[in-house]
Amino acid sequence: MALIVQKYGGTSVGSLERIRAVAERVGRARARGDQIVVVVSAMAGETNRLLQMAADLSDAPDPREADVLVSTGEQVSAALLAIRLRSLGYPTISFLGHQLKITTDSRHGAAKIKAVDCERLHRALSDGHIAVVAGFQGVNPDGDITTLGRGASDLTAVALAAATHASVCEIYTDVDGVYTADPNICPQARRLDRISYDEMLEMAGLGAKVLQLRSVELARRFNVPLVVRSSFSEESRGTWVGEEDKSMENVLVAGVTLDQNQSKITLTGVADRPGLAARIFGPIAGAGIVVDMIIQNAGADGRTDMTFTVPRADLRRALEQIRSIAGEIGAAGIRHEDQVAKVSIVGVGMRTHAGVAATMFKVLAAEGVNIEMIATSEIKVSVVVNAKYGELAMRALHDAFLGDGAHALPEELG
Amino acid sequence: MALIVQKYGGTSVGSLERIRAVAERVGRARARGDQIVVVVSAMAGETNRLLQMAADLSDAPDPREADVLVSTGEQVSAALLAIRLRSLGYPTISFLGHQLKITTDSRHGAAKIKAVDCERLHRALSDGHIAVVAGFQGVNPDGDITTLGRGASDLTAVALAAATHASVCEIYTDVDGVYTADPNICPQARRLDRISYDEMLEMAGLGAKVLQLRSVELARRFNVPLVVRSSFSEESRGTWVGEEDKSMENVLVAGVTLDQNQSKITLTGVADRPGLAARIFGPIAGAGIVVDMIIQNAGADGRTDMTFTVPRADLRRALEQIRSIAGEIGAAGIRHEDQVAKVSIVGVGMRTHAGVAATMFKVLAAEGVNIEMIATSEIKVSVVVNAKYGELAMRALHDAFLGDGAHALPEELG
Repeated sequence: MALIVQKYGGTSVGSLERIRAVAERVGRARARGDQIVVVVSAMAGETNRLLQMAADLSDAPDPREADVLVSTGEQVSAALLAIRLRSLGYPTISFLGHQLKITTDSRHGAAKIKAVDCERLHRALSDGHIAVVAGFQGVNPDGDITTLGRGASDLTAVALAAATHASVCEIYTDVDGVYTADPNICPQARRLDRISYDEMLEMAGLGAKVLQLRSVELARRFNVPLVVRSSFSEESRGTWVGEEDKSMENVLVAGVTLDQNQSKITLTGVADRPGLAARIFGPIAGAGIVVDMIIQNAGADGRTDMTFTVPRADLRRALEQIRSIAGEIGAAGIRHEDQVAKVSIVGVGMRTHAGVAATMFKVLAAEGVNIEMIATSEIKVSVVVNAKYGELAMRALHDAFLGDGAHALPEELG
Repeated sequence: MALIVQKYGGTSVGSLERIRAVAERVGRARARGDQIVVVVSAMAGETNRLLQMAADLSDAPDPREADVLVSTGEQVSAALLAIRLRSLGYPTISFLGHQLKITTDSRHGAAKIKAVDCERLHRALSDGHIAVVAGFQGVNPDGDITTLGRGASDLTAVALAAATHASVCEIYTDVDGVYTADPNICPQARRLDRISYDEMLEMAGLGAKVLQLRSVELARRFNVPLVVRSSFSEESRGTWVGEEDKSMENVLVAGVTLDQNQSKITLTGVADRPGLAARIFGPIAGAGIVVDMIIQNAGADGRTDMTFTVPRADLRRALEQIRSIAGEIGAAGIRHEDQVAKVSIVGVGMRTHAGVAATMFKVLAAEGVNIEMIATSEIKVSVVVNAKYGELAMRALHDAFLGDGAHALPEELG
């Protein structure tokens, strides 16, 4: 008998018909003899409906009260699924965040889980109950309801899986797994059978939306195997996300990602003195703007060019910050490009195989795509290109590393 | 500085526009310097919407889970009102049943309040906060959410008023007070300035829907003054409900009520033996049917006729029970009338004034209305008449006891 955590996202419980289908699936898992914890999101659209009401009543809804409001979405889903499971004859009990003592800090809307007390959950499971848990919510030490951030029902599921030492955490969604690339852009993209935590983290951080970043981090920390799977198909085998193993090293590139919402700012001829970066990026961080890639080219004359990317939506505000300090740091000029794209390849195989970056550059050169910035990590290479070449670059890299004839490529090109 | 509990019903918070209006009213009360506790119902229609979803998923939704579901209605209202009050600049904090330790038994859907721990509430008020409390909900000793029954946000308000020793509990609704009769039936009905708990209990029990019966009982037990008032009008002075005083005794009849949903069953020629009533009404109570009036006429021959009323919707089931025991108790026959109405007059003045019942009978006789059953209590006289005369009887009694020239009537007719 295993303990399995299943998480169903908003589209998976988006209607009463969908809730019936989820109940059937949960029931079958229970009937196989396993202990089942189900974590549910709010019905699709419900969180936005609630937030819209709050926005109609206040320009800046109080965060504590907004959490009281939006947490009802998951509460409704949990109750409805429990009602359905009971009507099918399965002993079932629902739990809210405070009932399972999912204790968080007090950062309403983006709270961090501090502890989970699974005593009541284990008692329910030992009594033969299916436990249905409202995702996304916790409780702070004062007993106030908190929420964990958008998409954080995944986090609830992984935290419960870790705390209960579940054998697997199954994430049910509306796609049938993690893909080598976004199928909407790259028709040749295919589902991955297996992917490591590290690769999944890079993929999630780089814009693949299947799994929430923090939930993957938590799964890695507690070594909780994840399976991402479609709730809309009985056949979906899904993608297994877990610890890296030897077989994964043979796969050079697990996926290609594309982020089309970046822009680029370059400060030229800056006096290269200690503390320069802090003086540039301090004010930008202070304005709440997330800087992604940063490249510095030191010149021979003690002057340097500094280039960095920010989300396109933040470009105007970032430029305001930069202009206000440009004189102070002695910059010769400020250039910006508002339409750039970041294309990345991710794979743990890079740790043990040389030449992957070089292959990437050759593939892009062969397509006539100019590379504007490069950043590398142990298992990732990212390049910034003009936005109009973003999709072309993604498809070319997918063909080269993940297409049908891809296996022979590294040697030939490298 | 007084502590005031205000309760707003479903139509009073039925839209975002209404919530804005309620926030203005609450804010003005706070600005007068009083400590304010606000209890809110679910937005009008929300509870039914939630229950309909449950009904679509199950023929008999699990009561524990149904409470988890429907309690979200009040949670949403409380959060929205708190968000609005905060955006108007009033420090405000919302509380759910479990956060205020509104502890109940475990009868889901009809739980009874056992205790209220007001420590956190008092702390919030002392800190200068307006407290907005989700009505209708509590928590059982296991930490499960319970609900107190339809209309029970009144009960939450009265319980909190009692526990905090509030100076008044204001019940805001869509009518501007308690009326001498239902204005839809009796155009001459007028708002009462004052009414005693006992009268209000009889009126509520007899079908006047302004206040929930249990909340009036609780208010009387803890001597919490109630004011019933409209949230839709600034001018509404409302009706004060409180302890009986001398001035009330001068008012012979406070109100006339009409219940048009009754039916009547008569068992004729029953052998009048000890335990007869138990053998008749035990099975009916066992079937969950509430018997209202019971009349027994003992005959000289040791045989008796037994007549009683049940809600019309339960008539068929009541007859089934009666037929199954008719032989056993030796009844000569069973008669029933499915369309009867109960008309009642209520007033504490009856305690000290004789002849009220006689006046009532004369008024009805003058209208040609035949009285089929009579039941009296210390402050109430009820008669059962053919349903088609119900409204006529009500209007005639209202004219006689509460009309413009009513004061002279008792002596003249009595």
